[in-house]
Amino acid sequence: MDEYNIMLSVNEMPDAWYNIAPDMPAPLEPPLHPVTHQPATADDLAAIFAPSLVAQEMSQERWHSIPGEVMDIFRLWRPTPLRRAYRLEKLIDTPARIYYKNESVSPSGSHKINTSVAQAYYNKMDGVSELSTETGAGQWGTALSIACSMLDMKCTVYMVRVSFEQKPYRRVLMETYGGNVKASPTDETDAGRMMREQFPGTTGSLGMAISEAVEVAVKSGGSVKYSLGSVLNHVCMHQTIIGLEARKQLEKVGDYPDVVIGCCGGGSNYSGIAFPFMQDKMKGGRDIDFIAVEPTACPTLTRGLYAYDYGDTAKMTPLLKQYTLGHNFVPPGIHAGGLRYHGVAQTVANLTHAGVMRAVALHQNPVFEALIQFAQAEGILAAPESGHAIRVAIDEAKHCRETGEAKTILFNLSGHGHFDMTAYQAYLNKELKDFDLDQSFIDQAEASVPKL
Amino acid sequence: MDEYNIMLSVNEMPDAWYNIAPDMPAPLEPPLHPVTHQPATADDLAAIFAPSLVAQEMSQERWHSIPGEVMDIFRLWRPTPLRRAYRLEKLIDTPARIYYKNESVSPSGSHKINTSVAQAYYNKMDGVSELSTETGAGQWGTALSIACSMLDMKCTVYMVRVSFEQKPYRRVLMETYGGNVKASPTDETDAGRMMREQFPGTTGSLGMAISEAVEVAVKSGGSVKYSLGSVLNHVCMHQTIIGLEARKQLEKVGDYPDVVIGCCGGGSNYSGIAFPFMQDKMKGGRDIDFIAVEPTACPTLTRGLYAYDYGDTAKMTPLLKQYTLGHNFVPPGIHAGGLRYHGVAQTVANLTHAGVMRAVALHQNPVFEALIQFAQAEGILAAPESGHAIRVAIDEAKHCRETGEAKTILFNLSGHGHFDMTAYQAYLNKELKDFDLDQSFIDQAEASVPKL
Repeated sequence: MDEYNIMLSVNEMPDAWYNIAPDMPAPLEPPLHPVTHQPATADDLAAIFAPSLVAQEMSQERWHSIPGEVMDIFRLWRPTPLRRAYRLEKLIDTPARIYYKNESVSPSGSHKINTSVAQAYYNKMDGVSELSTETGAGQWGTALSIACSMLDMKCTVYMVRVSFEQKPYRRVLMETYGGNVKASPTDETDAGRMMREQFPGTTGSLGMAISEAVEVAVKSGGSVKYSLGSVLNHVCMHQTIIGLEARKQLEKVGDYPDVVIGCCGGGSNYSGIAFPFMQDKMKGGRDIDFIAVEPTACPTLTRGLYAYDYGDTAKMTPLLKQYTLGHNFVPPGIHAGGLRYHGVAQTVANLTHAGVMRAVALHQNPVFEALIQFAQAEGILAAPESGHAIRVAIDEAKHCRETGEAKTILFNLSGHGHFDMTAYQAYLNKELKDFDLDQSFIDQAEASVPKL
Repeated sequence: MDEYNIMLSVNEMPDAWYNIAPDMPAPLEPPLHPVTHQPATADDLAAIFAPSLVAQEMSQERWHSIPGEVMDIFRLWRPTPLRRAYRLEKLIDTPARIYYKNESVSPSGSHKINTSVAQAYYNKMDGVSELSTETGAGQWGTALSIACSMLDMKCTVYMVRVSFEQKPYRRVLMETYGGNVKASPTDETDAGRMMREQFPGTTGSLGMAISEAVEVAVKSGGSVKYSLGSVLNHVCMHQTIIGLEARKQLEKVGDYPDVVIGCCGGGSNYSGIAFPFMQDKMKGGRDIDFIAVEPTACPTLTRGLYAYDYGDTAKMTPLLKQYTLGHNFVPPGIHAGGLRYHGVAQTVANLTHAGVMRAVALHQNPVFEALIQFAQAEGILAAPESGHAIRVAIDEAKHCRETGEAKTILFNLSGHGHFDMTAYQAYLNKELKDFDLDQSFIDQAEASVPKL
C-alpha cells in the first residue's frame, strides 16, 4: 500500500551527487574559448563562475559530497515523493507500473532549486556576495532568488522585458524572495545600453539578458558571479539527487525502471532523473529505454546538428560540443518556455549520439491532452514542460496494454503549472497551435554554427 | 534530524474522523428552519444535502470511519508533512519550537479538498450524480471540481460574476478538472433571473450564488445536491484528519503543543487542526492555548454577536447559533477572501463562548509582513488566509524569546498563495489598506439578526 507514496526519511537522503563525466561512452570534448576557440582554461571560466563550481565543471571525480549546509536547505522539501500513478494506470487500463518523481513540491515549484541552492552555497564559500542571472518566464530567476534568500546573498535577475511586463506574477514571486528584478535590456550596463541604442523599443531576449548578467559579473572584480540554470556539467550533476532518490525509493518496493522519461530543454532535469541509472546500462548491460522528450517546435536532439556551438546569441559563452539548432535559432512561441533552447547539455548530447539514450519530439496539443488527463487522474496540475514526459509515459503504458508487458515506467514530474494557467486556458479554448519546422531551419543552423 | 519533516507512512494515516459534537462544553443548539424558525429535521436538510451527510451533521457519535475509497483518494497527497520551522525559529531567535502542518501540498492547494472528496463520495453512495456549489475566489470550487473528477461526478460551480471575470485563472483551474463554471447570477435559475432583473448589471455576490446552487439542487428531484465548503458540523469533522495526523506526528518526536493556531473564516480549517487536541484540555485539564485568527476587517469571533443567524444573505439556509456580524454584512475587500464570512461554525462559536479557545483579529499589513518572512525562511509562499496563523505563531515565538519559555507552537498552513500574487504585489507596492470597523456595524448586525 505504501507504493502510493514511496518516501525516504530525511536520513536516507543521498549525501553525494553523481558526476557522469568519468563514465561517458566517449570522452567529453573540451569547452572552447568563445574568442580564441582554444580549449577554455579554469581561469577563463573563473571570470564569471565561482572557482569551486569551475572545479566541479571540469571534475572527473565520480562522486561529490553534498555540503551539510546545502543538505539542511534541501531538507525543507527533500526527499521528494516518488508516487505510483495507480489512478492513471487504471484510467488507461495498462499492465505497466507508472512511477513519477514529484519535484513540483519544492519552494520554487520545480527541480531548478536543486542547483540554485548548491550554486549559491559554493559562491558564498568562495567569497561571492551577489549572483546575477537572466530569466525568461521566471522559473530559474525564482529558484535563484530563493537560494540567495536562504544563504543571505544578493540576487539580481535580468528578466526579458516582454516577460517582465506580461508576467508580473513571476516578478512579484522573485521579489517576495528578495530578488532584485530588472527589465532587460536596462540602461545600467554597456551591453544593455548598446542594445537599446541598436534596437530602440526592444522587448529584450534571453541572449541580451545573459549578456547583461555576465557583464555585471565580469566587471565586479569578483564580488558578483554569474549563475546558469541548466546545460553545464555541474548543474546537471546537482540535479542527480532526483534520480539517486528515485533509485532508493524504487528499491524500497523492489522495483527497477525499464523506461526512464524526462522532458529536455537544456537537459538538467533529464540528467537528474536519468544519469543515476545509466551505468547499469552502459556497464551492467541492463536493458533500459532512456527517453528525452522535446517539443517539435524546438527539436534540438531529434533534428539538430552535432557540433560545437555557443550557448547564447551574443557569443559570450564558451563553445560546447552539443546538439544545436544554431545559437541564432528563435523557436516558435510554445508554452513550454523551459524547453525553448537551441542547444543542450554536452553530456546529454554525447549520450544521445552514442545511442545510450534517445529523444522524441511532441506537438503541444497532445502534451496538454496528457496534462489534463494527468490532472484529473492524479490531481496534480503539472507544468507544460513536464507534460512532455507525461505524454510519453502514457503512450508507453498504452503500448504495454497492447503487448501485455508489465513494464516499469519512471518519469520526472519536473514542476507544477500554477503559473501557466494562460497555457491551460489556451488549450481549453482550442487556441493552441502546433508547429512543424520545415527543413530550412537546418540550413540556417549550419550557417550559424562556427566553422572550427 | 527527522524533525525537519515529520512524516507518517500511508499505513499510519488516521482511518476515522473525530466528531466533537458529543464533547462540547455546552450542548449544541439545534439548527432552525429558515422559514418556520422551528428546529430543522433531517428531512428539511435532506432537501439539499445527501442523507448520509445529514446523518453526520446530526450525529452524536464520536468517531466516524473514513471509507476505503476516500482513503484511496487521500493517499494522493496525505498524510501531509508536519514540519519543524527551524529556519524561522533561528531567524526570530526564539527558544520556542514551531511546527506547521502543511496542507498546501494538496491537489487543490489547500485543506478544502479534505471535505470535498468526502462529500462527493457520500453523495455518490446516496445516488447523487451531480453537485452544485458557489465559489467566490474559487478555492472551494476548485476543491469540489477535483473531488467530482476523481469520483466521476458532474460539478456545477456558480462563481460570483466579478471573480469570474477578474480571476480567469481560477476558473481555468476548475475547468481543467472538469468543473462546469457559470458566472452568477445566470439566467438559468429563477433566483438568478430575479436578481438580474432586480439589480441590472450586477457583478454578483456569494449570497446570490448560494441561492442559485441551492435552487438547482432543490429542483433536481434528488439527482443534484448542494455542497458547502465550511461551517457545518460534518465539514468541520472531515477536516479533523489534519489535527489527528499532526498529533501522531508530534508523538513521533515526543512533543505536544502548548499553543494551537489556525486562521478562521467559516471555521473548518481551525476545527481541523484544533479539535483533535481539545479533549485534553476540556477533560484532561491540559493547559493548551487555542487561538483562532481572523481579519480585523471581518471580526466575527472577536466583535460579533452570539446569536442565531442565517448562513446566507438570501435567508435560504437553516439558522445556526453562532457568532455573527449579521447575514447582510459585507466586509471590506481584504485579500484573505476565505476569511470574509459574516458567521462561523456553531462548534467553534460554542467553544469560544465557553472559553475553551480564544480569537484574535489582525490587520492585513502585519499578516503580509509575516508571509514574506515565512517565505524567505521556510521557502513556502503561503496563502493570505494562512498568513494570519503565521503572524500569530511568530508573535507567540517572539514572546517566548522575552519570557525564555520553550513552548511548542503548532499552526496550520492551510494553503499556498500561488493564485494570490496580486495580493503580494499590492503589499510589496505598499498599496494594502488596513480596515478598522467603527462601532456602527454592530448596530447593523443587531438589526439584521432575526428576532426569535
